[in-house]
Amino acid sequence: MIPIEEATKIVLGHSKSYGEEMAPLSEAIGRILRQDIHADRDFPPFTRVTMDGIAIRFNAYANGQRKFPIEGMQAAGSPQRKLHNLDGCLEVMTGAILPENTDTVIRYEDVKIENGVARLQANGIEKGQNAHLRAFDRKEGERIIKAGSIISPAEVGVAATVGLSALKVAKLPTVAIISTGDELVQVEETPEPHQIRSSNVHAIASTLYGWGIHPDKLHIADDMDATQAKLSACLEQYDVLILSGGVSKGKFDYIPAALSALGMKKLFHKVKQRPGKPFWFGESPNGKVIFALPGNPVSAFMCTMRYIRPWLRKSLELEPMDYAHAVLAEDFKFKPDLTYFLQVRTFFDPDTGRLMAKPVEGHGSGDLANLVDADGFLELPREKDKFKKGKVFPLIFYR
Amino acid sequence: MIPIEEATKIVLGHSKSYGEEMAPLSEAIGRILRQDIHADRDFPPFTRVTMDGIAIRFNAYANGQRKFPIEGMQAAGSPQRKLHNLDGCLEVMTGAILPENTDTVIRYEDVKIENGVARLQANGIEKGQNAHLRAFDRKEGERIIKAGSIISPAEVGVAATVGLSALKVAKLPTVAIISTGDELVQVEETPEPHQIRSSNVHAIASTLYGWGIHPDKLHIADDMDATQAKLSACLEQYDVLILSGGVSKGKFDYIPAALSALGMKKLFHKVKQRPGKPFWFGESPNGKVIFALPGNPVSAFMCTMRYIRPWLRKSLELEPMDYAHAVLAEDFKFKPDLTYFLQVRTFFDPDTGRLMAKPVEGHGSGDLANLVDADGFLELPREKDKFKKGKVFPLIFYR
Repeated sequence: MIPIEEATKIVLGHSKSYGEEMAPLSEAIGRILRQDIHADRDFPPFTRVTMDGIAIRFNAYANGQRKFPIEGMQAAGSPQRKLHNLDGCLEVMTGAILPENTDTVIRYEDVKIENGVARLQANGIEKGQNAHLRAFDRKEGERIIKAGSIISPAEVGVAATVGLSALKVAKLPTVAIISTGDELVQVEETPEPHQIRSSNVHAIASTLYGWGIHPDKLHIADDMDATQAKLSACLEQYDVLILSGGVSKGKFDYIPAALSALGMKKLFHKVKQRPGKPFWFGESPNGKVIFALPGNPVSAFMCTMRYIRPWLRKSLELEPMDYAHAVLAEDFKFKPDLTYFLQVRTFFDPDTGRLMAKPVEGHGSGDLANLVDADGFLELPREKDKFKKGKVFPLIFYR
Repeated sequence: MIPIEEATKIVLGHSKSYGEEMAPLSEAIGRILRQDIHADRDFPPFTRVTMDGIAIRFNAYANGQRKFPIEGMQAAGSPQRKLHNLDGCLEVMTGAILPENTDTVIRYEDVKIENGVARLQANGIEKGQNAHLRAFDRKEGERIIKAGSIISPAEVGVAATVGLSALKVAKLPTVAIISTGDELVQVEETPEPHQIRSSNVHAIASTLYGWGIHPDKLHIADDMDATQAKLSACLEQYDVLILSGGVSKGKFDYIPAALSALGMKKLFHKVKQRPGKPFWFGESPNGKVIFALPGNPVSAFMCTMRYIRPWLRKSLELEPMDYAHAVLAEDFKFKPDLTYFLQVRTFFDPDTGRLMAKPVEGHGSGDLANLVDADGFLELPREKDKFKKGKVFPLIFYR
């Protein structure tokens, strides 16, 4: 049995890269960018009018000019026009290129137009106002987005602007999630009194969809030969196996033995934590990764969030432990020499800007319903057994 | 021009319900549940063994019994067995139904098994230990999840357990996002010097995918007849139109006039805010909703997060303003009589558990690249013009 720090180090030490692929913009959200994005032109690419009104040469205003004959109109999307009478003006529309020989835009609100002349109605005109200077934000060739970013709507907007309709992103591992245990029936089936429906595979799979991973969901019966045969086939087909159940001391807990018989290397079995103590982790000689989680729903879910998610983040070259932190809202005690992942419900205290965590303990690792009442796990260190209200702890948030 | 509070009230006052539909579990994440979920059986449905070991009758232990002849084995997934010799035991596996005539489970770690007899190696056995009592978590018929919840992996797990392979969820509106402005070309095209690529439609659409909305992306040329024709067709086809550009004072800002000519009711035009002042909002006689946003990328994006998202949340019967709060990390000044949505980069201060927001101002509402450097908008109230470091403000977070 090893402490969580060691288990974490071993899990993260076995992160893998799965290469790259192209994703169209409409499917890129949440994926990890594997290319730098550069400005293909200056940002903005031309000095851009930012208010509807008239464009003048500031010198004319500085020399006392207040009436500007209108030479014409510069619309957005039209080639650049030129002001010929340097004391005149052109009407300009937001988004248009600023006309040649002009440098300053006066809003319609600040002029009165009569008989083809714009008469100024305001004071304090400043040179260059209401014009967004070419290259003011970024220069052509400058890097705007670094490879490794998680693609959000902002990145999608920039990608569209520079002409990328698809982005190079990190390819994702193929995953099988496999339940074990003869007490399990499928969700569509009606269980006998001694049976329950399989739920872990669905809950675990749901944590992966947001990354763009759509795992296959499988089941293995409590039989050594069947277990070996199915695991062997899965190890051929998938990059990652996530197993649920069959890792404890039961007579039919075939998973560790079956994996060992197939030549898998056990990297650890059992972690000083509650829930999730019987967690087994290993890899195949050719680098397939196997997370064999305990079958209790709270244990399986906690291990998914605390180990598989950081492993995936590391594999995608993200900071693996993207912990939030929260303030324990009530005193709490936990005696065993284990790291305790306390189920909590979090809320923001608007007065202090602090994220608070209220314990929602439930009835142990079999209490699936309690996962619904909580929204995270607060990680309480093994070294202590009393945890004071007001102290800050790492939070694994799952909503 | 109205204050943001009034604009918010009007927008939220025009939320709509779009009915219900069924979503399979694998597509339910992030959707809004439209049914209560009840326990179809007790939780757990039978008194469940939670440790591998032996099951005994506690009275035997209380009467001094320390050696328990093994009558057989109760495997997980097998019908309930019965202990016949009340001083004996049955081996039991995690997940199994607790055998009749037993009430207490002793872990394998605490017994020694020889010649068909389990000899106790530990003290302090407690009645009922390592058995998860039937109905201890929830009773059959009890509501476990309330209609209106956002479906997360925990809800998916519970749904699977109670036998729901699909869930009744809120149906989503059909949406068209329409760019305007003759300066725009499509992402695949090479812009002329006075043109730019369309990016708002992609960024706005990206904020909707996570809800399960996959909007159509369209463009309208700066022409009154074309604008009316296309808007008219869209108002037939979609529940919601999101327009970008064409709402300001320009000669070709046809959107408000075209919408008015089509019989749309203007609910407001212009809001006391920066960015996003020219924002227009209205509805059709038959309840179609129209958000006409300014064309500047930061303005369009801010209005999407600050108005469209809350409108959608309200339409889905969620708390519309799901603000986080963050602590301003630096002093900041903003004079105009407008609510200022300050672009910020947030980070957790692990010492205090406070979410901090550092200003990342950028070069105004045309500075698309700055959206990438920031991750949220801090909402600074109109009534003030000096904002002190350490004060807490509402945060619109967009990553």
